Amino acid sequence: ALLEGRIRSIDLVEATLARIADTDSQVHAYVAVFAEQARQAARQADREIAVGRLRGPLHGIPIAVKDLCHLRDAPTGAGSRAMTGFAPGFDATVVRRLLDAGAIIVGKTVTHEFAYGVNTPPTRNPWDPARYPGGSSAGSGVAVAVRSAFGAIGTDTGGSIRIPAAIEGIVGLKPTYGRVSRHGVVSLGTSLDHVGPMTRTVEDNAILLQAIAGHDPLDFGSADVPVPDFRAGLHDGVDGMAIGVDRAYFFYDGVTEDVRRASEDALDTLRGLGARIVDVRLPELAISSETLMTIMAAEASAYHRRRLRERPGDYDPATRLSLELGEFIPATHYLVAQRARAVIRGRMANLFRAHHLDAMVSPTMPMTAALLTDLIQPRPDWPSETPMLSCIHHSFSANLTGQPALSVPCGVSAEGQPIGVQFLGRPFDEATIFRLARAYEATTPWTALKPDLSTERS
Amino acid sequence: ALLEGRIRSIDLVEATLARIADTDSQVHAYVAVFAEQARQAARQADREIAVGRLRGPLHGIPIAVKDLCHLRDAPTGAGSRAMTGFAPGFDATVVRRLLDAGAIIVGKTVTHEFAYGVNTPPTRNPWDPARYPGGSSAGSGVAVAVRSAFGAIGTDTGGSIRIPAAIEGIVGLKPTYGRVSRHGVVSLGTSLDHVGPMTRTVEDNAILLQAIAGHDPLDFGSADVPVPDFRAGLHDGVDGMAIGVDRAYFFYDGVTEDVRRASEDALDTLRGLGARIVDVRLPELAISSETLMTIMAAEASAYHRRRLRERPGDYDPATRLSLELGEFIPATHYLVAQRARAVIRGRMANLFRAHHLDAMVSPTMPMTAALLTDLIQPRPDWPSETPMLSCIHHSFSANLTGQPALSVPCGVSAEGQPIGVQFLGRPFDEATIFRLARAYEATTPWTALKPDLSTERS
Repeated sequence: ALLEGRIRSIDLVEATLARIADTDSQVHAYVAVFAEQARQAARQADREIAVGRLRGPLHGIPIAVKDLCHLRDAPTGAGSRAMTGFAPGFDATVVRRLLDAGAIIVGKTVTHEFAYGVNTPPTRNPWDPARYPGGSSAGSGVAVAVRSAFGAIGTDTGGSIRIPAAIEGIVGLKPTYGRVSRHGVVSLGTSLDHVGPMTRTVEDNAILLQAIAGHDPLDFGSADVPVPDFRAGLHDGVDGMAIGVDRAYFFYDGVTEDVRRASEDALDTLRGLGARIVDVRLPELAISSETLMTIMAAEASAYHRRRLRERPGDYDPATRLSLELGEFIPATHYLVAQRARAVIRGRMANLFRAHHLDAMVSPTMPMTAALLTDLIQPRPDWPSETPMLSCIHHSFSANLTGQPALSVPCGVSAEGQPIGVQFLGRPFDEATIFRLARAYEATTPWTALKPDLSTERS
Repeated sequence: ALLEGRIRSIDLVEATLARIADTDSQVHAYVAVFAEQARQAARQADREIAVGRLRGPLHGIPIAVKDLCHLRDAPTGAGSRAMTGFAPGFDATVVRRLLDAGAIIVGKTVTHEFAYGVNTPPTRNPWDPARYPGGSSAGSGVAVAVRSAFGAIGTDTGGSIRIPAAIEGIVGLKPTYGRVSRHGVVSLGTSLDHVGPMTRTVEDNAILLQAIAGHDPLDFGSADVPVPDFRAGLHDGVDGMAIGVDRAYFFYDGVTEDVRRASEDALDTLRGLGARIVDVRLPELAISSETLMTIMAAEASAYHRRRLRERPGDYDPATRLSLELGEFIPATHYLVAQRARAVIRGRMANLFRAHHLDAMVSPTMPMTAALLTDLIQPRPDWPSETPMLSCIHHSFSANLTGQPALSVPCGVSAEGQPIGVQFLGRPFDEATIFRLARAYEATTPWTALKPDLSTERS
C-alpha cells in the first residue's frame, strides 16, 4: 500500500502514536516514545518513496524495540535504576539492521529488570489487567497486541519472547542461536540469549526476521551461515511433513485442560492439513530446567559482577539477591551443566534425524496468564509449580539446544485468555516452522484476535 | 622406499623394536610396547604392498601415541593409578585415522599424570638425564628424539607438545583448535586441549597432520572446515612473507642469552630467505597466563569431579590438590576468564590482519631444560619464575587463541641442550607455518641432531 501511494509512512506513524496515546496509560508497554524523530523519519521515508527509493522491506514501518537494545541517541534503561546515566552512543546491530531495512523506531518497550527481575514491571496484560503480562519482553508483546506497534523486537533467554507472545495472543519467534546478532543488547545469559521478532502474523514475523538476521562478527555467538528467503515457501503447505510430540514432557500433568484441548486441536488441524504426527520421547528434557538455571545464573552474575559492586543499591532487592547467589556457583557445576546441555542438544538432534522430523509441537505454556496475586504461590491444580515456574516449562529447552522456536495463537481459555502453540525447528531452519505455522494460522481464527481495552469500551 | 620394495614395513618395525630395547631402559619413553601386534600389522602391510594396495601415506610406518589416547585393545593409563582397571574398548579418532592411513601403533608413551601432574614421570631427558624431559608429552618427544618411533602423537593444553619438542630437539605442532579430534583422548582442559604430531622433520609433521586432521562430530570442539594438502606449498620458500615479533613479551628478560641468540639467528635466517620481520605489540599477552590457568583448573576439576570422589587415594597428592583447589573457582571467575580470552583472541586476529602477518615467531621456551633439582626453585637469573613456570611463558597463549603453533629446533645451548623456535600461525593455516619452518629447517643443521645415549657411547 505504501508503494502504491495508498497510504503514507507518516499516516502509519501518526496512527501508531495516536494508538500509543490511547492505550499506553492503561497497558504501559513503552518506556520511551520517539514521536518527533519518528515523524521526521516517516516524512523522509515518504519523500524517498516518491522518488522511487526503497530502503528495504520495512520501509516506513513503525517498529518498537525492547529497552535492552542500545540506540545511539537514547539511553538504555533495561528496566533498572542501575542503568541510570548510561548512554550507549551506538546502535545495536539489530537496530542498525531495522534502520537499514527502512524501519522507523517508534519507541522502546518495558522489560523486567535486566530481563532477570522477578518484580512485575508496570506493563499490564491487555486481556485482563489483573493478570501477569508475561516476561521479560512484556512491553514488546503488549505493544504488538494492542496495535501500538506494527512489530517489535524482544529477547529470549528462557522463553521471554514466546511467553508474552502466548499470553498476549501474538506471534513470537526465538530464532536459532547465532541467527540474530546480540551486539549492543544487554545480556542476561550470554550462551542462552537470543534476539527475535514479535508480530501480529507469521508472515510479518518472517519479514522482520529477514531484516534482522545475518552474521555479525561483533557478536561472538553469531553464526556465519546463509540467510534464506523466509517467505519463499511460506504458503506451500505442510502436506507430508513430520511433527514430533513428546507427550510425557510437553503434555505433563501441569498442563491445564484449556491448554491441552487447544493444543490437541492444533495438532488435529495440522494432521488435517496433511502433516504426520509422530510420538517421540526425549527423557533428557527432564533435566533441562536445572541445567538452564545453573548456566543462566552463572552467566548473569558474571555479566553484572562489576556493576553490582559499583551500585548495588540501584538493583531491585530480588534481582540483586539472584545475582549475588549466582556468584556462589562453582565453575565445576557450570561446566557440568554445559556438558549436560551438550547431551540434551545432541539427543534432540538425534531425535529429529531418527524420525525425519520437520518440527516438534508443544503448548507454549502449560497454562494461561495467572492472576498477579497467584504468581509465586503453588498452583492449586499442580502444587509442585508456581505459575512463574510453569511459564518456562515448555520454552527453556530451546534456549539450551539453540533450535528455533515459534509461538502462535491457538485458542482462548474459558477466562478469555489467549493460548499459544509452540513449533520447535531444526537449527537454522526457521523457514520450515514458519511454513507450518502459516498453514496452521491460515485455517484458524486466533491470529486476528485483539484485546478490548476500557477506553474502547467506554 | 617401502613402495619401491627397497625396505619392508617389518624391517621398520623390527628396527624400531630393537631401538626401543636399546634405549628405553635409559629414557623410559614407553609405558607399553605392542611388539607382536606391530609385527603382525607390518607383515600384513607388506603383503598389501606386494599386491599394490596402499592404505594411506603412513602405510607400514611405526608410530607411538601418548598414553592419554584410547586404544581398543589396550588400557589407557594416563600416567595415573586412578585409571587402573579402565579399558576403553574403542579407538580414539586420532588412532582410528592413523590406522586408516596405514600406520602401525608400536606403543604408548609416558605422560605426566592426566597431563596435569607436577610429579616428574619416569621419562629421562636423552640429552642429559639430570635435566627435565619436558611435559606432559615427554614420552612421545623422547621416543622421536632417540629414534624409537618414526613419529608420535602428543597433546597440548598449555604447551605440552611444544615444550618437550623444544627440549628434545624435535618438531612439534599444536594444530588449530578444532583441526584434530580429541574424541577418545583423556581431557585436561576441554576448551584448551589439542592433539598433534611430534616428528623429526617439518615434512614428517605435515604428513602426520594430514593423516589425523579433519572434522569429527564426536568432538564438540571439532571444526567442520576443509583440510588442505599440507605438503602442496611446503617447499615454495618464504620470499615476501611477513613475520611479526612482539619483543616486549616474547623476548622478555627471562629469556636466557643462549635462547635469545638462537632465536635472533633464526629471525636473521628467515630475513635472509626473504621474509620481512615486523615489530608488533600485543599487550594482552600479559594476562594470558592467569587467564589460561583459571580456565584449565576449572575444566580439569569438572572433568575429574566424579573420579576424584570415587578414588581420591589413587591420585598423586599434588595432582589431587590441584584438582581439589580447582573446585573452589567460582563460575563467575571462569566466565570472566573466558571473556578475557575472547579479547586476547580478537586482538591477536586484529594484529595479524593489521600487519598482514603470515606468522609470528618467538622462542618456544625462554630457557633450555633445567636440572630436575632446580625445577621448582626460583631461577637465579630470573627469580620471579621457576623453570617450571618459565616453560609455558611462550606456549600457552596459542592454547587460548586456538591458533596453530609449531616448534622447530634452532640451536644448542652451551650445556648442549637443544633450543626451539616457535611459529604461530593464522587459524586453520598450518600450511603457512609449515612452509616457513621448512624453509628455515632446510638451511640449518639443527633438525638432524640426535642425542648420544650411554649405550651407544659404551
